[in-house]
Amino acid sequence: MILINYPPREQWAEILRRPALDTENLFDTVRSIIDRVRAEGDKAVLDYEARFDKVELASLAVTEEEMQEAVEAVGVELKAAIYLAQKNIETFHAAQRFTGKKVETMEGVTCWQKAVGIEKVGLYIPGGTAPLFSTVLMLAVPAKLAGCKEIVLCSPPGKDGKIHPAVLFAARVAGVSKIYKAGGVQAIAAMAYGTESIPKVYKIFGPGNQYVTAAKQLVSLRDVAIDMPAGPSEVEVLADETANPVFVAADLLSQAEHGADSQALLITTSEKLQKEVMYEVERQLGYLPRRDIAAKALENSKLIVVKDTEEALQMTNEYAPEHLIIQTTDYHQLAERVTNAGSVFLGPLSPESAGDYASGTNHTLPTNGYAKAYSGVSLDSFIRKITFQEILPQGMCAIGPAIEVMAANEQLDAHKNAVTVRLNSIRKQ
Amino acid sequence: MILINYPPREQWAEILRRPALDTENLFDTVRSIIDRVRAEGDKAVLDYEARFDKVELASLAVTEEEMQEAVEAVGVELKAAIYLAQKNIETFHAAQRFTGKKVETMEGVTCWQKAVGIEKVGLYIPGGTAPLFSTVLMLAVPAKLAGCKEIVLCSPPGKDGKIHPAVLFAARVAGVSKIYKAGGVQAIAAMAYGTESIPKVYKIFGPGNQYVTAAKQLVSLRDVAIDMPAGPSEVEVLADETANPVFVAADLLSQAEHGADSQALLITTSEKLQKEVMYEVERQLGYLPRRDIAAKALENSKLIVVKDTEEALQMTNEYAPEHLIIQTTDYHQLAERVTNAGSVFLGPLSPESAGDYASGTNHTLPTNGYAKAYSGVSLDSFIRKITFQEILPQGMCAIGPAIEVMAANEQLDAHKNAVTVRLNSIRKQ
Repeated sequence: MILINYPPREQWAEILRRPALDTENLFDTVRSIIDRVRAEGDKAVLDYEARFDKVELASLAVTEEEMQEAVEAVGVELKAAIYLAQKNIETFHAAQRFTGKKVETMEGVTCWQKAVGIEKVGLYIPGGTAPLFSTVLMLAVPAKLAGCKEIVLCSPPGKDGKIHPAVLFAARVAGVSKIYKAGGVQAIAAMAYGTESIPKVYKIFGPGNQYVTAAKQLVSLRDVAIDMPAGPSEVEVLADETANPVFVAADLLSQAEHGADSQALLITTSEKLQKEVMYEVERQLGYLPRRDIAAKALENSKLIVVKDTEEALQMTNEYAPEHLIIQTTDYHQLAERVTNAGSVFLGPLSPESAGDYASGTNHTLPTNGYAKAYSGVSLDSFIRKITFQEILPQGMCAIGPAIEVMAANEQLDAHKNAVTVRLNSIRKQ
Repeated sequence: MILINYPPREQWAEILRRPALDTENLFDTVRSIIDRVRAEGDKAVLDYEARFDKVELASLAVTEEEMQEAVEAVGVELKAAIYLAQKNIETFHAAQRFTGKKVETMEGVTCWQKAVGIEKVGLYIPGGTAPLFSTVLMLAVPAKLAGCKEIVLCSPPGKDGKIHPAVLFAARVAGVSKIYKAGGVQAIAAMAYGTESIPKVYKIFGPGNQYVTAAKQLVSLRDVAIDMPAGPSEVEVLADETANPVFVAADLLSQAEHGADSQALLITTSEKLQKEVMYEVERQLGYLPRRDIAAKALENSKLIVVKDTEEALQMTNEYAPEHLIIQTTDYHQLAERVTNAGSVFLGPLSPESAGDYASGTNHTLPTNGYAKAYSGVSLDSFIRKITFQEILPQGMCAIGPAIEVMAANEQLDAHKNAVTVRLNSIRKQ
């Protein structure tokens, strides 16, 4: 860990800099896989599964039999936890439902918005040693609530040719329509363009490694929307001298264990806390199964002391953390002034883990400073707001002449004429 | 115009296909301009202005003196029209303000969202013969309402080294903070990375040619958000035998005059209307100053007859038009069932021109079928929704054990531990 005390303002940018993401150098490799899947469909996906996931699949779709097997394989305790998380995620996201108001901007000119679910969405769930069933819930629960008609999920199978039972169980609970054994670039390409088995979708969601990220970027240039650009996960803890160093250390470590490139940052007004957290991180690290990964991430982890909470807040807004945990006496007041962050956790008993799993908020959030321009995934991510307008004679008389003047000044006479012919017809009556 | 009668379903995809957009082949050219602006700042922007816009500028910022000159140059009639449009756009977008509800997902677990304006946004307004002051209003008015602190506008100057007075006036009315004379790729690069004069922004909005589009795509891969992918503008009119062919023809022409690549489509249940519209388009075309452009666009324009409004609606949702005008007797019922469109105009007196200029809805909309996954620009485009959560002891006791189980099953023990240390501290009390 790197201790930094009272850095002057001109050093902030350097201190807060993230490692550069560069997916563009992968574009050529990734594009060739995408092109082949686009041209050859299932055959290409099956080939890539054999090559990259080392598994020979007879078919891509998960069968009802496999689903039943998975449902039986998941333990009763995990099932209960998944149901609890699903319910909370549903409760929070259901409260985000949008009802458009009809607005009469002038008499006889009525405009409104209506939320409509994206018809077909694709969810990508990475494989690897740990089954990310929590991400299944975070994406499929709001998709279902939004009214998406087709919710497609792709996840790479293990060496046994199967998707982890907990992932399948979570998908069933959350209402996923169709599940396919496909990972990496080939899965993204399949959902972007469709194959014989895998349906084409209109928007692709979900995390992944740099190849998956590059594939999502490439297909999003023209053909399909994506949730948001991705980078390594990150947490910032903003704490004063009243914070519990055991909690702060545990929060930093829970981020560090994600991967060697994870960012864990403490910004505090207390030199004492800085030291205590440092010792506590070392102590807790010894107990962690993933201590090698966490230790690697901690090498770049910074514990920064600033002069007051005002400065801490300014530095926070400049950093724009994906997760921000505020453990100060005045955390409510500070929270009001956070302008750049993905998800904010308030007070001593709100660890990031709560939002990662079960409190109800979404865990798909903007990393890499993207919180300055992007929101995390929410119900909004699965809908579009279509605008409607209806203009009555009185309304056309009110706004028509202004439209004629504006259109004429933009040298768009046909635009003007579309109003003129209507004004003439009203005047004739 | 191409007349198509009762096409079988299997031909729809081909009939509704848009011309392919390919900005990727411009990436090398565009990247070199971006890189130079990033490295050399103002000097590079000034050089490119000389090369591409044929104008030698002493400086990039529009001065208060130039602004005053512009304000005086705009006629009283146009000023009044701009004020009327600004007021309606403001009324409609102000009604979109978001107030997050606090949701107790379980007792002691409170989660909410808060809308915060994107601090710095950049608006790009293309140059050319016609000054697009309406687009200034469409982007700057919601930016101001959203609470964006810095609203930067770039637009290429004319040969006289000045931006069109109407653009400057609209910018002043709408509350733009800073205006710069810069166009094309160099303007996008300047706003993405900042130069000595032009501030770096977090999100870039606005239309442009294929180079501007390619530049927005490239900078959005890593460094800055953009409003949405762009393609040629398009309108679909969905009409039955009761529609006025004069209005329908005027609406198709108002799209066709945008550019040779504009898409204008009629889907109707009436062969009689199809013919009348065809004659009426030819007649009105003769009066248009931009008839050469419009005639070119009309070559690819399709007038399609289908068997009933049900089929018309299905075809519409498959096409996902940017603008949809419904001129049928039952337009209210049909509107309810539109699932894919950017902005919908209902009844005989609601031409696209109304939404383009002055009814209050936004005219920055998803083209190229993107309406299947994207919304048009709205107040949402200028904010982020940050999530917050506060967990109290009772809440931690309710969800903590579920989090521990889920984290353990995802093999993330530090995530589990961040909860365990808190549960232990609660139990000790």
